[in-house]
Amino acid sequence: MDFDGIITLAHGSGGFDSADLMQAVFAKHFRNDILARLEDAAVVNIGAQRLAISTDSFVVEPLIFPGGDIGRLAVCGTVNDVLMSGAAPKYLTCGFILEAGLSISLLDSICASLAEVAMDAGVAIICGDTKVIEGKNPSGGLMINTTGIGVFDAEDDAASVASPSPAGLHAGDSLIVSGALGDHHAAILSARMGIENEIQSDCTLLTPVIEALAAAGVHVHAMRDVTRGGLATVLNELAAASGVSIELTEGTAPIHPPVKALCGILGLDPLYMGNEGKMVFSIAPEDESAALAAVRATEIGREAAAIGRVLSRNRRSDETLIEPQVFLRTAIGGTRRIDALYGEGLPRIC
Amino acid sequence: MDFDGIITLAHGSGGFDSADLMQAVFAKHFRNDILARLEDAAVVNIGAQRLAISTDSFVVEPLIFPGGDIGRLAVCGTVNDVLMSGAAPKYLTCGFILEAGLSISLLDSICASLAEVAMDAGVAIICGDTKVIEGKNPSGGLMINTTGIGVFDAEDDAASVASPSPAGLHAGDSLIVSGALGDHHAAILSARMGIENEIQSDCTLLTPVIEALAAAGVHVHAMRDVTRGGLATVLNELAAASGVSIELTEGTAPIHPPVKALCGILGLDPLYMGNEGKMVFSIAPEDESAALAAVRATEIGREAAAIGRVLSRNRRSDETLIEPQVFLRTAIGGTRRIDALYGEGLPRIC
Repeated sequence: MDFDGIITLAHGSGGFDSADLMQAVFAKHFRNDILARLEDAAVVNIGAQRLAISTDSFVVEPLIFPGGDIGRLAVCGTVNDVLMSGAAPKYLTCGFILEAGLSISLLDSICASLAEVAMDAGVAIICGDTKVIEGKNPSGGLMINTTGIGVFDAEDDAASVASPSPAGLHAGDSLIVSGALGDHHAAILSARMGIENEIQSDCTLLTPVIEALAAAGVHVHAMRDVTRGGLATVLNELAAASGVSIELTEGTAPIHPPVKALCGILGLDPLYMGNEGKMVFSIAPEDESAALAAVRATEIGREAAAIGRVLSRNRRSDETLIEPQVFLRTAIGGTRRIDALYGEGLPRIC
Repeated sequence: MDFDGIITLAHGSGGFDSADLMQAVFAKHFRNDILARLEDAAVVNIGAQRLAISTDSFVVEPLIFPGGDIGRLAVCGTVNDVLMSGAAPKYLTCGFILEAGLSISLLDSICASLAEVAMDAGVAIICGDTKVIEGKNPSGGLMINTTGIGVFDAEDDAASVASPSPAGLHAGDSLIVSGALGDHHAAILSARMGIENEIQSDCTLLTPVIEALAAAGVHVHAMRDVTRGGLATVLNELAAASGVSIELTEGTAPIHPPVKALCGILGLDPLYMGNEGKMVFSIAPEDESAALAAVRATEIGREAAAIGRVLSRNRRSDETLIEPQVFLRTAIGGTRRIDALYGEGLPRIC
């Protein structure tokens, strides 16, 4: 980290530069045992009660996009982070930063959307705050911070998806992604570039997938929603936290044809593109078919697919010694390293 | 509320237009019993545990000002809101929105300041988020959302300052302000206008005042920190929530001479100016001297003063029938209505 430098859009990418800033500045000053776990939601014990807490600011542009809007996103993003800890989301706070010039009717419709998805998620909006600033755009803008609070039931500790952890990958685990990659990112990019196509953001609550896995009695070792930085970045974080490597099988991750086409034209890789309604999780290989069946039975998980497996800490499948890394096994049998996102990705995607 | 209109800086003032937006948009869509109380911190019960939760976004400009910086403010503002509910602040989340171009060393020093005051406040920063946007200013900017979580001890319910409420004003109560008005507002205004003077922001934690009142065994009926919109707006909110009127005595609220001088030149009224380390509270009149002594024994409360009293719902001191209102009894014996803030106040003050 160059302390004589300035913040660039890359520091908000969710990739390598974000992680660098996180370590060099935020983690340095704010260190404590809870923050150090670097999970999407912090887990704290207050009295006899265990809570999951997660915060996220949403700065997406445009405010309304195919498949969603910033209000819907502000609930889904934070609720999904709380869900990934295994807790039941219960409360949400909302901090609005409005840019002068914003249409009040637009704000009204975004709040209606936010309220609707909060009701779907079963979370109550318990407190809020509003600030108004002069932004870059004379026609106004809107940023929303949400903090979500989830509750662990006492009995959850015995339940199947109760204690997933980013460090929970086991050698031999099967990895499953709950649906197609890149839709949110591609929808935002298309809207911003004025490209007309049928791509819709996948912005949604992951609650049905979690409930289906719990109902099927599948024991999830690790799970994470696949957002900024894409699947590649998320898997690198899980691999590092667990001290294992991951081997993906080329061509197994579902990608919708219009997204694939857009990526082909623009030279983008769906493995690095953000989603807002997809998760990846690891399970014992013997649970793979039960997990796939459970997730595919949900509306949002119909395209779920097994995409690879967890390797032991020090060995690739050809027995080469390695550090925790993510590899792609290609169709012709080679392997290619899949790193976390470098550079800036697409700003203001979420 | 004109739904064909646009958001203006007045909607962020903390005064009348903010309240209008709150009711017409946010309260309409997000209504629930907890939010409806409109307190600075929401109080929720999770299992056997009672928690206070408050969220605030900080957009102050300049980022560093005489007496503080946005990092210090982001802790004090939210911690003070949690304190006002009677809970002990325990956890803080931090959402950073960085504007590209921000100096990394400036961010680093703001984070150091934030961490220092969080330690003073006894709160752990348990989770965070960082987004980067292109802002209005090419040299960058910074906004911070903090959400604070406070805990009520089981035994707190019996303690003296445990259950203050905005609706807790009793007819006959004495009102005390913990120190001089307008310092934060005047410091920000001076910095932004390039006026050189000795005014320092009062940005600080109110913990010592709360602890002093508890140690003195004073039963606080209602308390509120005096921030955006100033004392006038806060007292109007308390009066409306409690269904009582308030009579202030002219000349009793402490105001530092340089602030008074600045207000004289610029035509400002310190009753409408924001503070970031002051609170107003109500107590039974027989507790007034004990409360004043306790608060004045703290470093930040040396200038505490009794500023007025709570009237019964329907009567002024001259027996005229009235709606809940705030009045100023002038030195020559007349009364003047003190309304909540109309218009925009000073934007980006907090």
